[in-house]
Amino acid sequence: MLRAMEPVNSSRSLSQVRVLAVNGAEATERDEALAGEEPLEMRACGPGQDPVSIAVTMRTPGDEEALATGFLISEGLIRATDLAGVRFEVGDPAVMAQPENEITVRLAQPFEAAKVASRNFVATASCGICGKASVHDVVLRCEPPPPGPTVERATLLRLPGVMRQAQEVFASTGGLHAAALFAAGGELRALREDVGRHNALDKVIGALALSGRLPLQGSVLLVSGRVSFEIVQKAAMAGSPILAAISAPTDLAVVTAERLGMTLVGFLRGERFNIYAGKQRVDLTT
Amino acid sequence: MLRAMEPVNSSRSLSQVRVLAVNGAEATERDEALAGEEPLEMRACGPGQDPVSIAVTMRTPGDEEALATGFLISEGLIRATDLAGVRFEVGDPAVMAQPENEITVRLAQPFEAAKVASRNFVATASCGICGKASVHDVVLRCEPPPPGPTVERATLLRLPGVMRQAQEVFASTGGLHAAALFAAGGELRALREDVGRHNALDKVIGALALSGRLPLQGSVLLVSGRVSFEIVQKAAMAGSPILAAISAPTDLAVVTAERLGMTLVGFLRGERFNIYAGKQRVDLTT
Repeated sequence: MLRAMEPVNSSRSLSQVRVLAVNGAEATERDEALAGEEPLEMRACGPGQDPVSIAVTMRTPGDEEALATGFLISEGLIRATDLAGVRFEVGDPAVMAQPENEITVRLAQPFEAAKVASRNFVATASCGICGKASVHDVVLRCEPPPPGPTVERATLLRLPGVMRQAQEVFASTGGLHAAALFAAGGELRALREDVGRHNALDKVIGALALSGRLPLQGSVLLVSGRVSFEIVQKAAMAGSPILAAISAPTDLAVVTAERLGMTLVGFLRGERFNIYAGKQRVDLTT
Repeated sequence: MLRAMEPVNSSRSLSQVRVLAVNGAEATERDEALAGEEPLEMRACGPGQDPVSIAVTMRTPGDEEALATGFLISEGLIRATDLAGVRFEVGDPAVMAQPENEITVRLAQPFEAAKVASRNFVATASCGICGKASVHDVVLRCEPPPPGPTVERATLLRLPGVMRQAQEVFASTGGLHAAALFAAGGELRALREDVGRHNALDKVIGALALSGRLPLQGSVLLVSGRVSFEIVQKAAMAGSPILAAISAPTDLAVVTAERLGMTLVGFLRGERFNIYAGKQRVDLTT
């Protein structure tokens, strides 16, 4: 399904993929632009100091200097006045396939590395971080999903309405993400909500695990928002063959689903949806 | 503005606040339900092992056992088959105000703590974690915002349209969050997009910092999605007096904005918005 993960602009903020666009009884192949998603390792140091790894974030490529600077300020690690004489450095192209996925903020004054240790940030020792490595890591850790089930077009189209109706909390706040598990026939099996999309999905996976119903073979996972790499990873670790979403996937989410052999459906709204990977599990004849 | 942060249900997944609801020329006070947001520290251990802190996540209270179990599985730290004989333990009420904000997964078999160290998770040594502590921490680290500026109702209502038009990437993917900085008169000063809401905001803050334009006094920050605690924290660290969002805030976001003296506007759509905190900075007479 994925024709090329070549970026359509120099900063890799957009990728182009071939999707199967379903609208009512029609299904047509077309190119679609997806938001880029790549890991970025942010590091900082002062003069004569070794760079300290601050955090790794999954971000849309572009504006790395602004992102790292903004993160350091908005997390209280530096002040705007500390920026005089700042320099930025990308990763070493000799060891990294995507050197722009690592950025070092070199301050002209000492960086208080102790502040990093006292805060709740990710500490990573890895270098060579890139989207491909992330995908490879997930593929290594997951069992391939089963060949089935097959879900009918009409069933898929019904799922968002069922989920929305079941979202008691959503009805009153409009502020919660949801994740739901459905049988391939469309019966709702579990639904959880959370301010964090990843938490809603973890709650569904955990609830099913605790009742002895993992792996999620023969079922469809539906999430309320967008699909990032992390969401595909979590669905895959739970053994889900079909992941559907109300909104758009990122490019890395599509690559990961494809490599894993998962079915990924996005923009599931009204009479429409797009199939980004694994179209063999969707029955379009109904 | 905040009448009570008392939960309206036992799990604290919902809170009720008093908002000023603006619709065209009308402005009425009313109660509104907000999604709950609290930190959860997840820990795990096997028989005879000390619990290892796995991660801290900001989540909607409720279903902590499912969340912690799902996280461990979906991040590849345990398998569903490891759950036989599992027990769960909340924090120690003698030392924690909100003991349900810490959960320990006690497995009946050894837990491979080394897996945690090799992955990119948050490692925290803190106990006694709670929403109040998070708010207190942000208040300590931020300068209070200036008394102004004042933004007119009509100006606020125009901002989402301006941001949307400026979102080139959004137009093609529908998959990116945006953050934008506006002058109080409505002029767009900066806009950035990202798959992560927090990254889009960090990019705006960083871009302004690098051009010597922090703190963000006299301006309005607009974010495309929901407002979590983290978004308010980042806006506050950048010195922003007014934060507006297309979608809903969480309860902890409202409490934080109120404690900091920030103005927080949500559900800014069409002719409507809600003021959750700091209504003195919104001129409703225009």
